Amino acid sequence: MSEKGFSGIFPYLVTPFDDSLRLKEDVLADLVNHLISKGVHGLTPLGSTGEGVYLPSDTKKRTVEVVVRAAGRRVPVIAGVNEMTTAGAIKQAAEFQRIGVDGILVILPTYFPLSERQIVGHFRAVARAVSCPVVLYANPKYAGWDFTLPMLQELAEEPNILYLKDASGNTGKLFSIMSALKGRIRVFSASAHVPLFVFMMGGAGWMAGPACLIPEQCIELYRLALEKRWEKALELQKKLWPLNVAFQRYSLTPCVKAGLEIQGFPVGPPAPPQKPLSEEEKKAVSRVLEKIGALESG
Amino acid sequence: MSEKGFSGIFPYLVTPFDDSLRLKEDVLADLVNHLISKGVHGLTPLGSTGEGVYLPSDTKKRTVEVVVRAAGRRVPVIAGVNEMTTAGAIKQAAEFQRIGVDGILVILPTYFPLSERQIVGHFRAVARAVSCPVVLYANPKYAGWDFTLPMLQELAEEPNILYLKDASGNTGKLFSIMSALKGRIRVFSASAHVPLFVFMMGGAGWMAGPACLIPEQCIELYRLALEKRWEKALELQKKLWPLNVAFQRYSLTPCVKAGLEIQGFPVGPPAPPQKPLSEEEKKAVSRVLEKIGALESG
Amino acid sequence: MSEKGFSGIFPYLVTPFDDSLRLKEDVLADLVNHLISKGVHGLTPLGSTGEGVYLPSDTKKRTVEVVVRAAGRRVPVIAGVNEMTTAGAIKQAAEFQRIGVDGILVILPTYFPLSERQIVGHFRAVARAVSCPVVLYANPKYAGWDFTLPMLQELAEEPNILYLKDASGNTGKLFSIMSALKGRIRVFSASAHVPLFVFMMGGAGWMAGPACLIPEQCIELYRLALEKRWEKALELQKKLWPLNVAFQRYSLTPCVKAGLEIQGFPVGPPAPPQKPLSEEEKKAVSRVLEKIGALESG
Amino acid sequence: MSEKGFSGIFPYLVTPFDDSLRLKEDVLADLVNHLISKGVHGLTPLGSTGEGVYLPSDTKKRTVEVVVRAAGRRVPVIAGVNEMTTAGAIKQAAEFQRIGVDGILVILPTYFPLSERQIVGHFRAVARAVSCPVVLYANPKYAGWDFTLPMLQELAEEPNILYLKDASGNTGKLFSIMSALKGRIRVFSASAHVPLFVFMMGGAGWMAGPACLIPEQCIELYRLALEKRWEKALELQKKLWPLNVAFQRYSLTPCVKAGLEIQGFPVGPPAPPQKPLSEEEKKAVSRVLEKIGALESG
Repeated sequence: MSEKGFSGIFPYLVTPFDDSLRLKEDVLADLVNHLISKGVHGLTPLGSTGEGVYLPSDTKKRTVEVVVRAAGRRVPVIAGVNEMTTAGAIKQAAEFQRIGVDGILVILPTYFPLSERQIVGHFRAVARAVSCPVVLYANPKYAGWDFTLPMLQELAEEPNILYLKDASGNTGKLFSIMSALKGRIRVFSASAHVPLFVFMMGGAGWMAGPACLIPEQCIELYRLALEKRWEKALELQKKLWPLNVAFQRYSLTPCVKAGLEIQGFPVGPPAPPQKPLSEEEKKAVSRVLEKIGALESG
Repeated sequence: MSEKGFSGIFPYLVTPFDDSLRLKEDVLADLVNHLISKGVHGLTPLGSTGEGVYLPSDTKKRTVEVVVRAAGRRVPVIAGVNEMTTAGAIKQAAEFQRIGVDGILVILPTYFPLSERQIVGHFRAVARAVSCPVVLYANPKYAGWDFTLPMLQELAEEPNILYLKDASGNTGKLFSIMSALKGRIRVFSASAHVPLFVFMMGGAGWMAGPACLIPEQCIELYRLALEKRWEKALELQKKLWPLNVAFQRYSLTPCVKAGLEIQGFPVGPPAPPQKPLSEEEKKAVSRVLEKIGALESG
Repeated sequence: MSEKGFSGIFPYLVTPFDDSLRLKEDVLADLVNHLISKGVHGLTPLGSTGEGVYLPSDTKKRTVEVVVRAAGRRVPVIAGVNEMTTAGAIKQAAEFQRIGVDGILVILPTYFPLSERQIVGHFRAVARAVSCPVVLYANPKYAGWDFTLPMLQELAEEPNILYLKDASGNTGKLFSIMSALKGRIRVFSASAHVPLFVFMMGGAGWMAGPACLIPEQCIELYRLALEKRWEKALELQKKLWPLNVAFQRYSLTPCVKAGLEIQGFPVGPPAPPQKPLSEEEKKAVSRVLEKIGALESG
Repeated sequence: MSEKGFSGIFPYLVTPFDDSLRLKEDVLADLVNHLISKGVHGLTPLGSTGEGVYLPSDTKKRTVEVVVRAAGRRVPVIAGVNEMTTAGAIKQAAEFQRIGVDGILVILPTYFPLSERQIVGHFRAVARAVSCPVVLYANPKYAGWDFTLPMLQELAEEPNILYLKDASGNTGKLFSIMSALKGRIRVFSASAHVPLFVFMMGGAGWMAGPACLIPEQCIELYRLALEKRWEKALELQKKLWPLNVAFQRYSLTPCVKAGLEIQGFPVGPPAPPQKPLSEEEKKAVSRVLEKIGALESG
């Protein structure tokens, strides 16, 4: 991790497990090594794609241990904290810090509707429980709420809340946030966005599932953006876009897990009630990966 | 439990715990004894009001043990199963059955959007994991999805799926469901409904939070409905309605916990990110309880 | 109209027109005579079912003239005012009053999102433009907004705003409104509600499309409610409910127009972009009407 | 209009009228001349900002006549057709073509929910009623529906449906549409988007309200994009963005009308139920315009 903080391509790692939700540690370590060898700038276990909300605490703890050890400080690890209670999130965040993560990504799954005050209170409390950098995350499509600019301005008072991963898909909203919080909170693109445009606006990078499947292409996109070779970058973005579309059409995790299986990583099925892709759907993903040139590398 | 199945007033028990989410077993047992002494027809620990989604597995297990033991088979106990994964829900359901519950109420908290097929698959699988009766539950205001009539018709194929607790607030929808599934799936009212009208349509009873605070009045309402004394029942329903309104205005659990504290049960605060009621809000709840005549009985 | 104000069954009249949207005056007058002969308590031209938002001003004016003349003061006529601008609504309301209506039903179709202040301002201004009683109407399923209790309390300051036709389908909401505005604003049921329950709560009546097709049965339901013969009423409500369901499944106006054609009234098709029912759908409506016993009376 | 079709900056003209909704023809002609003198590439009367849904037919007809005459074929005029019925839209479209517009922008305000089939049917029918190019328009924030890709693919079968003005704000969606319909349907940005990114993806231009207030800056942004001077363009886009934000915060038309009044065009107030900006809000808009350098030009 550079002194300038997190930036670049951070794959949202899937969590490989068998039908009993037992972690496949070797497959996970292999995936970590594979992605680092491809040049990713960091790793994010237990993001949405990592099915963190679905796993028992001890599996989550073990997942982070495996990733941190396999990464061996070659790249920063930002682990997803996704507990419904503030107490649970605080405990998990502290635990992940002890394990040695470089940052945490805080997700707040909701059951009861929460007020802005309650949401801000949760993220603040978790941030105060650790000394490492914190990435805020909300997915309005899943949760029915999103950070407002005033909420972000309040949260920016916490010195270690440094990043936002935005999944709204609304570039205009991002433009407003980045103008208002310039230099204070940096933004990572999600796959609901056109990542190139987030890079262009000065985004820190792209944190998301596709980078598990097409790490080289994602890195190339980021590199072209850094070099301000916009037309070249746009051309590549167009080529990669069908994978974002596939992610939106099929469920997120089932899609990444299917793609990795196609590429030769036996990551197993998603946890029910999610279902694996049908054979038909797998073929569609396979075709998309082939066109992008991501099937040789499995 | 009568041979005719579950019916009547089933309070959605709060789960009393301290600031560290440690179960207050004695307070819970006291509450169980108090409610049974008032005449409730059953008890439902770990429904929404019971903050089941917020508690660790072992606390949930212990909660059910305490309730089952304190109830001592005087009334049926229907325990809430509220896990995000099908595997977790199956495990929890089986465990609750071993502890000795008379039925389970299955709640499916969602993070990723799920298809109807995936939702039906979850409830089917959990129902097959137990031999006791199953109550289906969905809260469209919390979760963004609700059972459709075709989904219910499919689920009615499982012989032990016998009840639905509907929280839509839409009486017309209930009317359609009850017409279509007459005699196959019986409906419990939630507090989003006007329970009297659900009774009138032939509903099995009322499963919800207010019965923790006003058990006698809820039972009286149910009794009047059984006796078809509709005008008398309507008069009582009008008197009780402001409590439903308070529940909708303030958050559900904070409101019931505040009311029980006012009545003398030290059930403690809700789990953050939920927040206890403000002094102002507590006074409003207190006034409502006083008007209903539910403050002498604490 | 009795001194006690409007009450009972008010069919939402369809507006019969040919493919060029030319009013079929004779068919309309026939329908008015037919419904009055069946005993309806009033008539509501240009409600949603009347496609008021779809018709040019002069057609709407003529529609009201035909209905007022055909009714011949035998029953009150409450005409729908459904203009997007306040100026247009004021003009139309005044015009309808000049024609001789007994009341107006004010609908506010929205294009731009409006604030509560803007909505209240509209209804207030229209109410002040007439001396006759005003019925408020909002359809949250169509418009994305609904009256809140504070909005209704503010509007109740206007002395001639006396009624609300609620289409939320949420009986609990209605219960709250009727408790808070008891005696000040009376509520008419829409077909999204179970009308019997609205009658039971003290509702003024039922204003809606089905009464065009099954006037006698609607009147009987209302009469049974007046006589407090609740069980008998419930039995009838159950029998009629499938028509409400058909209304919700198929589009409203196409469904009523199809039913009237089946009954022998050549009311013509709905205005495109709405489409007439398919043959399949017409058969379904026909079967529902037959079961209710509403096909002999055409 | 070049042989290559419409492109560039098309201000969504406000419709200047007095308190009685009487068209201020001279003010409108002045505005047209002013904007053409500033270099805009075309004019769009009766878009959302033009309050087309709020005006009587004859005012709309007169508005288009004034704009077409004042424009004098110096730039193309694309007039908004915004009728709720297909018959009304067909009539209006044909009328506008007779007056001499170069294209029409078809808006479908909805009251009753419509199926995809009904929506496609409407746009198809209107397109067939004219020989000039047609711009499709939907505003999901106003109407609760949006074009799906299959709907657009079906509509692209009509030879004169050539453009889409997208107001979703979702750049990813646009990316998918532009990939799938490349060369067949060209996309105009709305102000909910970051227009620069739409230009970058190959968008045809920007059709929206801000160009009434800052025509030179909008044209400059478009020119920089044409010249592929992306960094310079991004810098300008950042400077202009606060105006988009103001548009989103305050209502659209009230905001543009207030800004034009500040710039010296007596365009009058918006039509109630919309309300003019408060003094406070006007000052905020004024400050935004000043920063952009758009107050000298009034």
